Amino acid sequence: MRKKTLYLDYAASTPVDPGVLVVMMPYLKQEYGNPSSLHHMGQRATSALERARLQASSFLHCAADEVVFTSGATEANNLAIRGVVRPFDAAQGEQTVKPHVITSAIEHESVLAPIQKLEKEGIIEATYIPAGKDGIVHAEDVGKAIKENTVLVSVQYANSEIGTVQPIAEIGRMIREKKKSSVVFHTDAAQAANFLDCSVEQLHIDLCTLSSHKIYGPKGAGLLFVRKGVAVDPLLEGGSQEGGLRSGTENVAAIVGMGKALADLQSPKVQVEAVRIRHMRDQLIKSVLKQIPESACTGSMARRLPNNAHFTFARIEGRDLVMLLDQKGVAVSTGSACSERSQEPSHVLLALGMSPKEALGSLRITLGRRTTKEDIVRVLKTLPPLVDQLRKRVV
Amino acid sequence: MRKKTLYLDYAASTPVDPGVLVVMMPYLKQEYGNPSSLHHMGQRATSALERARLQASSFLHCAADEVVFTSGATEANNLAIRGVVRPFDAAQGEQTVKPHVITSAIEHESVLAPIQKLEKEGIIEATYIPAGKDGIVHAEDVGKAIKENTVLVSVQYANSEIGTVQPIAEIGRMIREKKKSSVVFHTDAAQAANFLDCSVEQLHIDLCTLSSHKIYGPKGAGLLFVRKGVAVDPLLEGGSQEGGLRSGTENVAAIVGMGKALADLQSPKVQVEAVRIRHMRDQLIKSVLKQIPESACTGSMARRLPNNAHFTFARIEGRDLVMLLDQKGVAVSTGSACSERSQEPSHVLLALGMSPKEALGSLRITLGRRTTKEDIVRVLKTLPPLVDQLRKRVV
Repeated sequence: MRKKTLYLDYAASTPVDPGVLVVMMPYLKQEYGNPSSLHHMGQRATSALERARLQASSFLHCAADEVVFTSGATEANNLAIRGVVRPFDAAQGEQTVKPHVITSAIEHESVLAPIQKLEKEGIIEATYIPAGKDGIVHAEDVGKAIKENTVLVSVQYANSEIGTVQPIAEIGRMIREKKKSSVVFHTDAAQAANFLDCSVEQLHIDLCTLSSHKIYGPKGAGLLFVRKGVAVDPLLEGGSQEGGLRSGTENVAAIVGMGKALADLQSPKVQVEAVRIRHMRDQLIKSVLKQIPESACTGSMARRLPNNAHFTFARIEGRDLVMLLDQKGVAVSTGSACSERSQEPSHVLLALGMSPKEALGSLRITLGRRTTKEDIVRVLKTLPPLVDQLRKRVV
Repeated sequence: MRKKTLYLDYAASTPVDPGVLVVMMPYLKQEYGNPSSLHHMGQRATSALERARLQASSFLHCAADEVVFTSGATEANNLAIRGVVRPFDAAQGEQTVKPHVITSAIEHESVLAPIQKLEKEGIIEATYIPAGKDGIVHAEDVGKAIKENTVLVSVQYANSEIGTVQPIAEIGRMIREKKKSSVVFHTDAAQAANFLDCSVEQLHIDLCTLSSHKIYGPKGAGLLFVRKGVAVDPLLEGGSQEGGLRSGTENVAAIVGMGKALADLQSPKVQVEAVRIRHMRDQLIKSVLKQIPESACTGSMARRLPNNAHFTFARIEGRDLVMLLDQKGVAVSTGSACSERSQEPSHVLLALGMSPKEALGSLRITLGRRTTKEDIVRVLKTLPPLVDQLRKRVV
C-alpha cells in the first residue's frame, strides 16, 4: 500500500490552517453579500474585510488604509512594479531620461518578468544586482546602483528557492539616507512572512508584498502594503475597491482567511515553532551532506529561512529525483514551483555562478508546521538510495 | 424579532450553490498542492484545474486552451481591454494613427474605466455608442463607428443594472462581415451567463468575460475566453500560468467551484428555472407599477434578463429606499453594487437620457434560484408604504 504522502514543499504552498478555514466558512455559505452593497449583508462583508485589514496592518505595523488586498503575491508584485512605473510610462516622449529600476538577479519571476518586459519595451532602464555565491544581495551594491533617475528598488526579503534572507532593513536605511524621497523601496516578503519580522518601519520599506497561501491561508489572496504618499497606479480599474488601487469584487472568504493567518503569525508560539523547524532542518542538511557524496547545500546557512534546505547533487537531474521521491510518497521540489515545469535551469542558481548542469541537479526541501522528526528520518532513509540509483543509471 | 433577510440582490452576488461548495472543499483542505509542482499533490491540483477548464469550454463551446482563468470579471475585462491595446501602446511613437476602441456608454465600470484611462493618456481613441431609451445598443450604430484604425469593440451581453440584453450575435456578425480580421470583439457576459446562450461561435465573439460569483460560484474566480489567434498581452506576469496569459498561483478551490457552477448552468433545469423566475419578475413589475404612482420600469421588457426588475420612483432617492427596505429585512440595490456607495447618479441611467434627479430615484430588484412567490408577496407588501413614507418626508 502507498504510504501517506509526506509533504515537504511548504515553500510552494501551505495547507490551510483548520482555524483559518473555520473563519472563512461563513463567507462561503450564508454571508455571500457583495461588500459594495449598501444593505446589511453587504455591510457584514465589508466589516469582515476591515477586520482582515486590521489584522494585516497589525502584522505590518502600518495603517489599515495602507493595505491593498489583491488576488495573490504575483498580482501584488506586478502592481508594485507597473504601478510605480506607469505614471512615467504615460509621460513618455516628454521625458529625456527613462526611469530607472533596480532589482536583484535572484528575484521571483513575478518581479523579474514585468521589469524585463518594461525594459524590453524601452519604457525603463533596469539594473540587476548580482547575488554572491552565498545567495546574499549586498546593500552597498544596491546603493552604488542608485542614480538620479532611479524610481524603484525591488529586493526580495527571502529567496523562494534557496531561502537566503536579504538585508532589507540595511538596504532600506541606505536608500533613505542616500536619496531623501524619490526612490520607492519594494520588498517581496511572500516567503519571509512565516519567520521574519515584517514591520515596515523597522525595514524602511514603502511597498511590501505578502501571499496568503504561503502562510497557511487559502490560495487567492495576497496584499500590497502601500505607504501613505507613495504614488501607485492601479492595474485593475472599475469599481474602485481597495481605495481605488484594486478594483473588482473582493474575494471575501480568502481575504478573511489571510487576515486570520496573519494574526496567527503574531502568536508567541511562532517563535518556538521556528526553533523546532530550524532544528529539524539543520539535522536534515547535516545528514544529507554526510550520507550523500558530491552533495552541497546552496547559499548562506547563517542568513537563511529556518525551514529551507536546498541541495545540489552532482551527476543527477533534480527533476528525476523529485519524480522518484514522489513515487515513494515524498513531495518536494527542484526549486521554485512556478518554474519547475519549464525544465530550464533556475535563474537563481545561475545567478549564483552555477553551471546549467550543476543548477539542474537541485533539490529543495521545505519544512512546515506539520513536519515531524519522524518525517526527517523517513526522508533520510529514502533520499540517499535514490540519488545513488540515479547516478548508477547515468553511468 | 427581525425577519429572516429576503435577498433580492442576485445581480450583485449570488450565494455559493451547496453542490459547488462540496466540490471546492477538498481543495481548501487536504488538496493544497501548488498546480505548478511536479509531485502528485501538484498534479492532482492541475487535474482539478483542467476539469474546470473543460467545464468552462463546454459552456462556451470553445477549446479548453482558449479559457484563461482570472481572479474575477474585473480582471478579465481589464485583461481584454489592456491586453488588446498594449501591443499598440508599446509601439507608440512609431505610429501615426492611434488605435481606436469602440464600446457602449452603458458598459460596466471595469470596461469603461480602463478605456477612459487609455483615452486620457492619449494611447487610444475611443467611441462610446449611446443606448436608446430602452437600454439597447444597436448593431448598426456599432457598425457605423468602425474605422480603419479600430482594433477592439467591447459591448456587454446584458446590463448589470437594468438587465437589458444587447444584440451580441448581430454585432459579431456585422463586425465579421465589415472587416475580415483585425477588429477584436469582446463581450462582458458576467450578468448574462445565468440565462443566455454563451456559445462563442453563435455570438461571433473573440473575447468573453465570465464571473463565478454571479452564477452561484464563489467570489475570487472569473475567466476570459481568448479565441485562438487573437493577440492579447498579459496583465500579470511571472510564473507563466494559464498559457502565459495570467501568471500567479491558481486559486484552485475557486476555479473548481466556477467550473461546477458553469456545468450546472448546462442542466436542462436551468430553462425551467428561468421561466419560473421570469414569471415572478413579471408579476413583481406589474404589481409595483400598479400600486405605486409615478413609478416606471427602466428599459426594454422584451430584451431583458428574466430576473431583473429596475424601477425609478419620482420624488425619492433610491439610496433611502434601499436603507428602509434593509431595515425591513429586504436586501436590494439602487443599481450596480460597484458604484452604489458613490452617491453619484448611475452612468447607465444618464446614458439612457434620464436627468440626474430621475436617475437617483432608482431601485433594482434581482431574483434568483432561492426566490419564491412568497418573497414577491412580501416585497409587494413592504415596498409601496416605504415609497409613500419617503415621499411624505420630502413634502
